[in-house]
Amino acid sequence: DKYFKIAVLPGDGIGPEIIKESIKILDVIAEVFQYEFKFEYGLIGAEAIFKTGDPLPEETLKICRNSDAVLFGAIGDPVFDNNPEAKVRPEQGLLKLRKELGLFANIRPLKTYSSLIDKSPLKREIIEGADIQIFRELVSGIYFGEKFTDPEGAYAYDVCKYSREDILPIAHMAFQEAQKRNKKLTLIDKANVLDTSRLWRKICQEIAQEYPDVHLDYMFVDNAAMQLILNPKQFDVIVTENMFGDIISDEASVIGGSIGLLPSASIGEKNALFEPIHGSYPQAKGKGIANPIASILSVAMMLDHLNLEAAADKLRQSVEHAIENKYVTIDLNTKQYYSTSEVGSFIADHI
Amino acid sequence: DKYFKIAVLPGDGIGPEIIKESIKILDVIAEVFQYEFKFEYGLIGAEAIFKTGDPLPEETLKICRNSDAVLFGAIGDPVFDNNPEAKVRPEQGLLKLRKELGLFANIRPLKTYSSLIDKSPLKREIIEGADIQIFRELVSGIYFGEKFTDPEGAYAYDVCKYSREDILPIAHMAFQEAQKRNKKLTLIDKANVLDTSRLWRKICQEIAQEYPDVHLDYMFVDNAAMQLILNPKQFDVIVTENMFGDIISDEASVIGGSIGLLPSASIGEKNALFEPIHGSYPQAKGKGIANPIASILSVAMMLDHLNLEAAADKLRQSVEHAIENKYVTIDLNTKQYYSTSEVGSFIADHI
Ligand SMILES: CC(C)[C@H](C(=O)O)[C@@H](O)C(=O)O
Ligand SMILES: CC(C)[C@H](C(=O)O)[C@@H](O)C(=O)O
Repeated sequence: DKYFKIAVLPGDGIGPEIIKESIKILDVIAEVFQYEFKFEYGLIGAEAIFKTGDPLPEETLKICRNSDAVLFGAIGDPVFDNNPEAKVRPEQGLLKLRKELGLFANIRPLKTYSSLIDKSPLKREIIEGADIQIFRELVSGIYFGEKFTDPEGAYAYDVCKYSREDILPIAHMAFQEAQKRNKKLTLIDKANVLDTSRLWRKICQEIAQEYPDVHLDYMFVDNAAMQLILNPKQFDVIVTENMFGDIISDEASVIGGSIGLLPSASIGEKNALFEPIHGSYPQAKGKGIANPIASILSVAMMLDHLNLEAAADKLRQSVEHAIENKYVTIDLNTKQYYSTSEVGSFIADHI
Repeated sequence: DKYFKIAVLPGDGIGPEIIKESIKILDVIAEVFQYEFKFEYGLIGAEAIFKTGDPLPEETLKICRNSDAVLFGAIGDPVFDNNPEAKVRPEQGLLKLRKELGLFANIRPLKTYSSLIDKSPLKREIIEGADIQIFRELVSGIYFGEKFTDPEGAYAYDVCKYSREDILPIAHMAFQEAQKRNKKLTLIDKANVLDTSRLWRKICQEIAQEYPDVHLDYMFVDNAAMQLILNPKQFDVIVTENMFGDIISDEASVIGGSIGLLPSASIGEKNALFEPIHGSYPQAKGKGIANPIASILSVAMMLDHLNLEAAADKLRQSVEHAIENKYVTIDLNTKQYYSTSEVGSFIADHI
């Protein structure tokens, strides 16, 4: 199959700028590898609220459902962040999209680039050779549990709920990935306090028997937040619930030297979505300084997912080529740097 | 007042070993400064479960209620961690104690020691001069909300609930501390997703007007987990809910070079408890290698709380003297190191 329908959701802040570079890349890949990508654009987030009142218009959802993959930019706007009373919020668009498409597993690979190691706040010997794959559960937990705010503002609550069915698919996926890698899986939880964490522990213990070659261990989330910095090389595959995954994976981005490099894939039964792990970075919007690499590497994950491995490999090589030649944005090199679009073009040209 | 009743709860793992050193210190302080400390010991945690079946026996609670301060060691035992089905757990003892005594604010100061800066996994220029005070809400949120596990193990939930009354006291306390320091307060939350976080934001916004000299800002917890490592010097005082505070403060311990150095104070209307932020570290139990400094610095916070500032200052100087002279445990110097009890005695002798 050579024809693919890609839903493109640029979103807020720097989203449109980085997505533009990803599309540039996909156009070149189509040409070089003789594929055809049909792009269908959809509104989401603050952008969608301003234009339609709805952070996830029905039309956008339809485009995504009918796609072979969704390419997503970024979401969020300070107008909403600073107003705790806003009823409609950009993030609801992304959360609803994840839920509607059943994107239960968010996969975040982390590695270091030798030419960037000294950019990390961590010492070289701590991070050199670190290679971690984080599996974050993405459609349950406290993000999606019942929420309530008393109209008088006297109290509020959020419910974190997990069922066996929520946990099983992502746990299996993480075990399978560990089998392909170094055979070590760490479940991050707070099982000394939370019932939901104990359910995670119980289920992972149970299914561990189906993966006798994988060593399963457990770590409390507070300790994990520390261990990720003290000794990231102790980790191979990590699996965790939604909120802990959010925190831990952003934290772990420091290992790679810049959050501007980190892609993610969100996988469901029928659909898949690819997005950088960074946010909408509104302060940088329109300045041409945003790093397009996280989005471009998300495209590489998308190509893998579409079984276009040759193109994915070529793309990753081209990204590494740019990084090694210091053809990068200001976040990676404050002395000599290039614009978002220059970096995108440099990578595209190399393909 | 020269007479103080101190409840002493050594707890599990290395708890008893480090507490022994803290008592050694208090004995010397009593002598030098002419105070009288009356120590009353209580059982808690796994130790208490093994002996009485109850992680917080009534007797222990009584001792604590009648004390001027509680000195706490550590809690937790792998026997329970690896058994998700256990109904009675050591941690319940500490959580119940915090709740019963109304210890709503857990205060964790973080600083760097010049002679230890190179021990940190972070680069010197990132951490040198960092000085952060974390205020963690300690008796509400998901730790104390309703919990449920379906008897068949099909699902579980934990409720995170906050009321205005839960948030106000700690928020005021954090603002007041910011006034005494660099006048910057950061609320860490996930207000783009959680109702409880939006309540925190709303209340902090409201009371900010009473502290016009303090600059209040907000940070999402995922971003904060990253920023703490990228640029810890941007923080002055942090205030946050229970679970985020647990994660963030353990993570931030890497800034100081070792979790073995970090004390905490848990403050309520009537009572106060002082404990190291590290855990029970069962692998080290009985080996004489545990670092007693976090507990000893918790004693310094206790002395401050009892308005014995001169003794507290003297104690802190003595700790710094030990660190500067590299009279430390193996976690801080693997080449030349001293036992738990040697370090305790060295500090005591200096007082
Ligand atoms: C924008 C926000 C809702 C989102 C999340 O917390 O899931 C983001 O931080 C992420 O990690 O993808
Ligand atoms: C032992 C555990 C319940 C406790 C907590 O999470 O509060 C500990 O990690 C702490 O931070 O004091």
